[in-house]
Amino acid sequence: MLEKAISDNGSRIDYKDMTKSLQQNLSKLQLKMKEKNLPVIIVFEGWGASGKGSLIADIIKMLDPRFFNVYSTLPGTETDRRYPLMKRFWENIPAKGKMAIMDRSWYQELAIARLEEGISEEEYDRRIESVNVFERQLTDDGYLIIKLFLHISRQEQKRRFIKLREDNSTKWRVTDTDKMRNKNYDTYYKQFDDMLKRTDTEYCHWRVIDTTDKQFTRFQLFNILVSQITNAVNSEPHYPIPADVTTMFPMQKTPLLSEVPLENKVLKPSKYPEELKKCQKQLAKLHGKIYKKKIPVVIAFEGWDAAGKGGAIKRLGAAFDPRGYEAVPVAAPEKYELNRHYLWRFWRKLPKTGHITIFDRTWYGRVMVEKLEGLTPEARCAMAYREIDEFERELTRSGVILIKFWMQIDKDEQLKRFNERMENPEKQWKITDEDWRNREKWDLYETAVNEMLEKTSTVYAPWTIVESNDKLYARIKVMNTVIDRLEEALKK
Amino acid sequence: MLEKAISDNGSRIDYKDMTKSLQQNLSKLQLKMKEKNLPVIIVFEGWGASGKGSLIADIIKMLDPRFFNVYSTLPGTETDRRYPLMKRFWENIPAKGKMAIMDRSWYQELAIARLEEGISEEEYDRRIESVNVFERQLTDDGYLIIKLFLHISRQEQKRRFIKLREDNSTKWRVTDTDKMRNKNYDTYYKQFDDMLKRTDTEYCHWRVIDTTDKQFTRFQLFNILVSQITNAVNSEPHYPIPADVTTMFPMQKTPLLSEVPLENKVLKPSKYPEELKKCQKQLAKLHGKIYKKKIPVVIAFEGWDAAGKGGAIKRLGAAFDPRGYEAVPVAAPEKYELNRHYLWRFWRKLPKTGHITIFDRTWYGRVMVEKLEGLTPEARCAMAYREIDEFERELTRSGVILIKFWMQIDKDEQLKRFNERMENPEKQWKITDEDWRNREKWDLYETAVNEMLEKTSTVYAPWTIVESNDKLYARIKVMNTVIDRLEEALKK
Repeated sequence: MLEKAISDNGSRIDYKDMTKSLQQNLSKLQLKMKEKNLPVIIVFEGWGASGKGSLIADIIKMLDPRFFNVYSTLPGTETDRRYPLMKRFWENIPAKGKMAIMDRSWYQELAIARLEEGISEEEYDRRIESVNVFERQLTDDGYLIIKLFLHISRQEQKRRFIKLREDNSTKWRVTDTDKMRNKNYDTYYKQFDDMLKRTDTEYCHWRVIDTTDKQFTRFQLFNILVSQITNAVNSEPHYPIPADVTTMFPMQKTPLLSEVPLENKVLKPSKYPEELKKCQKQLAKLHGKIYKKKIPVVIAFEGWDAAGKGGAIKRLGAAFDPRGYEAVPVAAPEKYELNRHYLWRFWRKLPKTGHITIFDRTWYGRVMVEKLEGLTPEARCAMAYREIDEFERELTRSGVILIKFWMQIDKDEQLKRFNERMENPEKQWKITDEDWRNREKWDLYETAVNEMLEKTSTVYAPWTIVESNDKLYARIKVMNTVIDRLEEALKK
Repeated sequence: MLEKAISDNGSRIDYKDMTKSLQQNLSKLQLKMKEKNLPVIIVFEGWGASGKGSLIADIIKMLDPRFFNVYSTLPGTETDRRYPLMKRFWENIPAKGKMAIMDRSWYQELAIARLEEGISEEEYDRRIESVNVFERQLTDDGYLIIKLFLHISRQEQKRRFIKLREDNSTKWRVTDTDKMRNKNYDTYYKQFDDMLKRTDTEYCHWRVIDTTDKQFTRFQLFNILVSQITNAVNSEPHYPIPADVTTMFPMQKTPLLSEVPLENKVLKPSKYPEELKKCQKQLAKLHGKIYKKKIPVVIAFEGWDAAGKGGAIKRLGAAFDPRGYEAVPVAAPEKYELNRHYLWRFWRKLPKTGHITIFDRTWYGRVMVEKLEGLTPEARCAMAYREIDEFERELTRSGVILIKFWMQIDKDEQLKRFNERMENPEKQWKITDEDWRNREKWDLYETAVNEMLEKTSTVYAPWTIVESNDKLYARIKVMNTVIDRLEEALKK
């Protein structure tokens, strides 16, 4: 792609006035972005000394500082490396109507990592996919991502380095790494070219600008920004027809909820204390081991209201070292959460290596309550299976052990528990009008859950259905499942 | 205080049953906490091997994991050190109705820092004050802080270290630092004692428990927790009568708003471009210098609606390197923000050394809109002057340059600008019904602002009143003020 960089071949056109008018347009477009709730990400990548810094400065001069943030991407710290690759980039996605300008970006984890950190070919391929998925998920959600690669020739780069070094106030900017990269320009050229080709997608194209001529570069830059943002503010949200996930991901068969036998799944109360103690002892031991081996764990709970999620979580929590796990209750999203991609709030809470996060309700709200209560357009919800399968693949690929529970009770058992809660003053707070309303939609929910289980029970993140009419049985099954999964992970 | 540690002097009482009943009480108290929206912080400090870890485990066994978080406090990282001392602790205060359990805490920045990091006596004194202020501010806001110091004798500690080292699975827990501290037990004893005495306040007492006898320790622990939480859930919020801040802090005199002459404060439009350019050039240079000298800067904007905050911020922003500053627009707090102390959201946004944060509206909302619109009880608002003066003293003490602007226009000028906004389609979004409603309360606001200026214009964080009837004049004055303050800071 680099050979096709847009450049000015000595056309001697004076771009100044055109650029000025484009700049003023950009300034006005901010208001449109705000009005249309359009989030924009501008990615600056390119050669050292290709002019990223001054172009970013040119852009923000036209913008209200309250509408944008600039992020400089440095190599990931030790702590960053303890999380899934894309977490730190997910965290900084802009809110609707705002702009994030990336001075270098997630692309540092691709080309540079391949040449300088010696990541394997497989890892490089995976990262290419992670980045493409990231950009597609955001684009599908209405984000506009503008990717710019600033290109200069080896000679031009060398000339600029020399100039920078001649001036006392700028010479610190030319590092040994820069010199090394200039020396190996051809290698980097090939690598950048490969990266650009493989991440130039239909939903997120690269624009490569030859920045040798400053005037022309600025004109190109503002031209791209204005035309792409104008397009985006004038287009209506469109939801691509979702692909069939069951053919895209390796699936594991799950039964229909109606096929799950609940009757015989009971545990004698007399046996419970001993079983509980045994499980908790084993879990405590395993927690120590995964901490030492730095394995991150996510335990996700879904299930009918009153199915016993809280009780199961409590028993798990009591077994783990409190300094190494966090329980995250997930409620209806607040405004600042609604202002971003719906997976954002879950990415933020992912555990670092050696730690455990327990989600009490999860990202699956998208295909249950959000879908059935009409909180999100149905066509948008329909895209969620793919997004979720991809999200979970990202986690498990990065080493996360992901354990998902569906706590299953039948309608009669739920009624019994609702009534108990109503009668018990200490438990009344647990039952709300919403619970009764949801109950009326039992059949609709059951259909939705069946579809969800079918489409999101992948080999790497299978669902475990927990027969929960008997609470004691359910708790022990949850614990034993966690034990099995952790032991399996430790064997590898 | 250590000599008075509560201990069991061989009383041979069997505490088991009593402890069990207390534990069950604690479990029930969680619901009360939730109902009453009580936030609780439990601080565990004490000697190495005094049993913090297992006592914390005992507590959380009784709790629902969705109601608490455990934080292990490690020595501050390089990054932590680039922020005001208490920032990382402010960030983790619990939401209302939730509990934070601190496995070591901000007290690590006192005793241990004094003995092992060689902080000066003055710094130690300041930190004592920072901690006392932090705890008082939270307590005043309805937080319950329970501080426990676990005490053992030198011999007992040594005995426990030996036992830990005998077991292969626990010997890693005894570090060289532990051994060194045991060797210098007497020095640490004196230091801990001093720290405990000086932070044992009427609003936040220490409880020192001799943990030699495990049964007795657990009884004491649960006894303290249950009695303190029971008290707290049963008491109504009370607002201490605020002290007179003008006698507590070194004040700088500010004029009444009515005494600020606006007429002659104008700048010829023909002179503006040149002035602007000069200021921005100087600001860019200074930003580079404060970045290198690692000076953090906070610029706070308040003023009448339509007084020109946005325009001034935009011109400042255009001068700074975007990678080194952030503009933070402050709107009405969202639910997750209301669920915590009102200063929490500002602490989170403080700049690290070398960086600049510009607040578009600030913590002063407390004594303006929150007070006048009755969003917060008046008695609670009245406490804000002291809290704000303390907050700003914390910042400036830690090296922050704090620059506060009040953008002043008169009532006629505001009307003119409101009408202009109504007529200009590109600016209509800037004007809301609320702006008109606030305008009707001009006199009330003026009184509130005068009081605010009087009570919060301290020597270390003075207000600058910017005569803003003429926008060009105002912008240049803002920039020149920032220039002066930064140059002054760089001289030191």
